[in-house]
Parts: sequence; structure tokens; C-alpha cells
Amino acid sequence: MPLCHYIYLGFISMSGSDKCLQGQSPDEQDYLRYFRSYAFISHQRSMLEDHKRTSAYHRAILDNRRQFEGKVVLDVGTGSGILAMFAARAGARKVYAVEATSMAEQARKLVTANQLDNIVTVIQGTMETVELPEKVDIIISEWMGYLLLRETMLDSVLVARDRFLKPGGAMYPSHARLLWAPIRARESAERKADFDRVMEHWEWFLIDMKNHYQIDMDVLTLPYIAEQKQNYLGGGEWADVHPDQLLSEPLASPLLDLHRITIEELKAGVTGEGSVMLKSHEPIDAICGWFDVSFRGSPEQPADHPIDLDTAPDAQGATHWGQTIFMLQPPLRPQPGDQLALNFAVFRREDYERLLRVRLATRLVPSGTTVQQEYSVD
Amino acid sequence: MPLCHYIYLGFISMSGSDKCLQGQSPDEQDYLRYFRSYAFISHQRSMLEDHKRTSAYHRAILDNRRQFEGKVVLDVGTGSGILAMFAARAGARKVYAVEATSMAEQARKLVTANQLDNIVTVIQGTMETVELPEKVDIIISEWMGYLLLRETMLDSVLVARDRFLKPGGAMYPSHARLLWAPIRARESAERKADFDRVMEHWEWFLIDMKNHYQIDMDVLTLPYIAEQKQNYLGGGEWADVHPDQLLSEPLASPLLDLHRITIEELKAGVTGEGSVMLKSHEPIDAICGWFDVSFRGSPEQPADHPIDLDTAPDAQGATHWGQTIFMLQPPLRPQPGDQLALNFAVFRREDYERLLRVRLATRLVPSGTTVQQEYSVD
Repeated sequence: MPLCHYIYLGFISMSGSDKCLQGQSPDEQDYLRYFRSYAFISHQRSMLEDHKRTSAYHRAILDNRRQFEGKVVLDVGTGSGILAMFAARAGARKVYAVEATSMAEQARKLVTANQLDNIVTVIQGTMETVELPEKVDIIISEWMGYLLLRETMLDSVLVARDRFLKPGGAMYPSHARLLWAPIRARESAERKADFDRVMEHWEWFLIDMKNHYQIDMDVLTLPYIAEQKQNYLGGGEWADVHPDQLLSEPLASPLLDLHRITIEELKAGVTGEGSVMLKSHEPIDAICGWFDVSFRGSPEQPADHPIDLDTAPDAQGATHWGQTIFMLQPPLRPQPGDQLALNFAVFRREDYERLLRVRLATRLVPSGTTVQQEYSVD
Repeated sequence: MPLCHYIYLGFISMSGSDKCLQGQSPDEQDYLRYFRSYAFISHQRSMLEDHKRTSAYHRAILDNRRQFEGKVVLDVGTGSGILAMFAARAGARKVYAVEATSMAEQARKLVTANQLDNIVTVIQGTMETVELPEKVDIIISEWMGYLLLRETMLDSVLVARDRFLKPGGAMYPSHARLLWAPIRARESAERKADFDRVMEHWEWFLIDMKNHYQIDMDVLTLPYIAEQKQNYLGGGEWADVHPDQLLSEPLASPLLDLHRITIEELKAGVTGEGSVMLKSHEPIDAICGWFDVSFRGSPEQPADHPIDLDTAPDAQGATHWGQTIFMLQPPLRPQPGDQLALNFAVFRREDYERLLRVRLATRLVPSGTTVQQEYSVD
């Protein structure tokens, strides 16, 4: 029997199956589920034409040419080679551009076509296994995933740092953080309606199976409810949120310092808590998460012109990262005078490490309504 | 950088990346790309509620109860357990229901809820590794994928046959074949238009990258054209074809006899050729492929009531398999008096064995236009 032609939206979380065959290594799962898409030129193109993203890196490097001139640079996950080429244009003495997929072949062609092959060397491999002839002054990388940490390419960046960055060397970007805010969002009611429709369909299905085949499938109803709740309401969903949807100022996580954070700290998760003043007391449909990064250089090699790349809700439209929204069903209903206390924890899932678990606890203060839910960011 | 939220239609072929990490076994790739979806109840449900499919099996088993009474049966890839339950209802003495995924747990619950657990034993495992206490009289299985052979679950069925079927035992279904016909299809012009739009976008992208970043990406144009041609026009696509679209009677492959075909023969591919009389001389937009199977029992144990399950274009709508259509761009343009000669070959791809290569050669006779193309069924 075939796989049904499901429309797979990269973000709808579907639980139920995470058992792997014996002996299957994380690397091997990884390749199939993650790396493959980066080998497509169309995927590279859609990232390149995200101008908020690409121009932030362009300015971070070219506005800070003094920090790049004469230096040795490593580009982790170079893709098309674009950041490596920016670094070469900013006057780097040597750039190593490492790419795990066959996109490395395209990067090599581009570097040559742009006459930068005397500076930029493209190497196909992973940061865990590649060898470089020397240590580097600067590591550049565009590693951020949905909600900052999905994909966990950051691990490879930290491995690169630990293996190849000279003491006092600079990470570009240098800092990152997560931000959260309560929002109004019609998606929440829509997903609930989708779920209700699916359950109605299920009731008919049960009757159908009894009538046609005299088979009683009701014992599957509870597992099916759990499966579909997770599917429709249990995942973080990509959205292009308008600033008008925000119901408070954002709550930020502690700043992650890319020069100092360890892989163990990363594995332990990014957590935080705080309170926000609600702008209005309409129902809160969802919690919206996003990230920003900044390019400040290292303490020993500060950037002349610090640059920020921020993916907050924007009236002009989202970067390709969008924001990630987590439904509150039913909506939270603040009383007059309530503030919102929010507690968040973002962890990697042990089975598929590029997927995230997000625990959100929301409490209305002082009226006391508390909701805690764990979501999957697939 | 995140995976863009691509809409993945299970069928649009995307070439470009098939390099695997060292040491990755076919089984391990397999699990991730194939088995996982069967662990979802919603997936099982959508197959069960395909009544053309499920009722064909119901009749094939229940109408042939004389062939099942007192027999030992094996259900390969039992999923929800439905076929095993049909066999038990038809009077089987014992049914072994083997399922590779965690759906086996649900099957076990269903078998118990329907009071058939004295007859049906659900075993979680693969046919390649499972042990059974005895040989079986009958193997039942719903193994067919898109274009019959995608997914290649048939391999597991043949392994089961070779390991467990008694001499003279019966396979349900017993026979299968592929069928082909030229069709009119607006998808062909639509995909061409999609491709043209993407290439127009690419031209703007090149200008954009030069203006914003002074980077020349033109060296990627030829690989990008190849990538997108394969994406839009190089794959077999799922469609629900109406009989009015057919431009001739179908051409059928030789009949595959499930009692006799070997795994080596299967690997060598399903090929055939022939000519069809065209009903009209309008342009031929695509070649449409589908399959049928029949339940005739074995020569030693023939079915009292042979049943056919056919997935041909149907005015009442397709089974969940649909048909598979292969675009001819530009369309073939028959002259008055032309017939269509068609030569087809369907092979497994060496890298991902559940994916197919389909070679179609079409020739208009006598006017002479010949087109040969190799497609991917992903």
C-alpha cells in the first residue's frame, strides 16, 4: 500500500512514531531528514533572496572590514559560499568554506566565477571530521533554525569553534536570544476547528467500518484523539505574525554568548521566565516565539559597527524564518488587571536531535489561571 | 538556517541529492523515509476508508471462505490488522499478522476488541527477521504502491513466500500488472508554466544578487535549469484521471505471477511494449500509468470466486492510489493515421530502493516522432 499523498507542512507536529531500527546512528537519520534539502539550489536561492537575512550578514562583514582584513576566516555550512565571498571581499587573507552537501560543488564554481578562488577554499565535509591546515581568527556562520535552535546546526558551529578558533577569535554572529509574546491569532481557532472536523470524520469512519465490514474500531478512538491533538495543536507552527497581533512587549531569554556557551549547556536547554504587561485584555490565542542575533565581535576583537538581525513580527513581512506560534486552546482569558507570567524551556528531543521540545507555562496574575503544555517543533 | 517550509507533495520528483553518509544501510534509510508514516492511525484510516480497495480484499477473502476454512494464514504488513481479521472471519484456523511499526500494538487491541485473538496473533517485526512456528497455507497482503511498485513492499511479500509458504500455497492477490495509456492532461501545460515562472524568477534573482551584493550567480543557471526541469517535469505525478482523458485503450504489461516471480526478476524491472490505436488525434499531454491485481488463488488451491481490484481511471473517482502521470513537454502531436507505439521500463533506483525509475519511449507511427524520457517516481 502506498504512502498517501499527504501534504506535509514542514511544521505540523505529528507524534506517534519515533522508534528507530537498531543500530541507526543519529548522523544517518540526520542526513536524510536534514542535510538533503540543502543540496537543492532552489533552497539556497530562497535563503539568499531573504534580504533582511543576507544584507544583515553583508553589513556585519563589509561594515567591519577592519576586523576582517588580513585575517583567516572559517565559514561553517557555507551552502552557496556567499558569506565566504563576503569575507574575501572584506579583505580576508584566507577563507575556508566548509559544506556537508554536494552544494559544495556549486559553491566552488561560484567562488571561481567571482574570482575569489585565490582566497576562498571550499571543502566538502562536516565540521566534526574536516581537517584544516591552520587555526582561524573568525568564524562566520548562518546556523539559525526556526525558533533559533531547530536543526541544531549550532552544535557544528561550537565544534568548529572548539577545534579551530584561536584564543580571542571572533564569532559572527556573537550573540543570540529567544523572545516570546502573547498574541491574538486566528490559527488557534482554525486548528481547533480542523481537529473537530477530523474527529467528526472519525465518528463516521467507525460507523462505516461496522456497516461495511462488521469490524469495531472504537478501541482506536483514544489513541487517535491523542495523535490528532498532537498533530493540530501540539506543535509549533510557522507564521508571519503582524505586530498588531502582539498583546504585550516581548519577554527575552538570557543572551547566549557564542564565544562561551558549551555544547553541554546547549543540550541542557534554553530556559527563562518573566512577566509581561498585557496591552489589552482580549483572549490570548497563542504564544509567539522568535529570535534575534547580533554581530558584536569578540571582547578582544570587537566589531567597529555592531549589527543586529532580528526576526520579530514585522509589518513588512517575515524573514523566511517567520515566527513560531504555539496554540492555547482554549484561549487564555485575562481579567482586568491581569499580567501574564511566562516560563519557557526549549530542549532538544533525544530521538531526533534536530527537533525541539518546547515547554510553555503561562499564568495570569493575579486571577490565577495556569496552563502548561509541552509542544514539539518538528 | 532553517529548512524552508516547503510544501512537499509526496510525488514531485526532486533530483540533486542522493549522496548518503558512509555506512548507512538501506534498512536504516528505509525506516525514516517509509515505515514511519504507517505508524499513524490517520494513515491507516485513509487506506481503510478506500472502499474500492478494502471491499476488494473483503470479497476476495470472504467470498472464498472454502479456500480459507481451517487454513493457516500469514498477513504481511498487517497495519491495523484488517485483512487478518477478515481471514479469521472466513474460518482460518490460525492467522499470523506481521507488522513492522508500532501500529502492531493497535492491531493487537483491535483483534482483541473484535474477539478474534484466539485466531489472530499479531507480531511486530519485519518479514526478513521474524520467526513463525509453522509454515502457512495462504499469504495475504496489501503491498501495492503508487504505480504498483513504488515502496517495493513486494520484496517483503516474496521473502515471506520463500520462507513460509507451503508448496502449492496461495498468494492473495495472485497476479498483478501495469497498464498505460496516452492522455490529455492540463497538468502538463501547468507544470511547464510553473517551470517558466520559476526561471523568470531566477533571472530576477541573478539581477538582484548583482545589485545588492555584487555577486554573480550565473554559473548556477544551467544546474538550476536541470534541477527545476526534473522537479516540475521529470517525475511521475499523482492524479485522479477521468476516463474521458484517455486517448486510447490501455496497453498492459505481462502479468506478474506472485507465486512464481523471483526477487531477482523484480529487481530487473517490469518492461514491455506495444502499440495502441489513438481514439483521436489531439495532442498527447502525458502517459498515464496504473495497475490492477487479481485474486485467483494458486493452481493447486484456486479461488472459487476470482476477484479483481483495478485502479484504472474511473468516473466515480480514484482509489487512494490515483494514477501516475508522466508529462510530455512539448505534447506529442499525432498526424491523421498515426498510432502510438509505447515502450516502458520500470526499475528500482539503486540508492533509494523504494523510489522508481520509469523509462518511457513513445513513437508515432508512421509519422515517426519519437520521444524518450526517464522519470523518477519519488
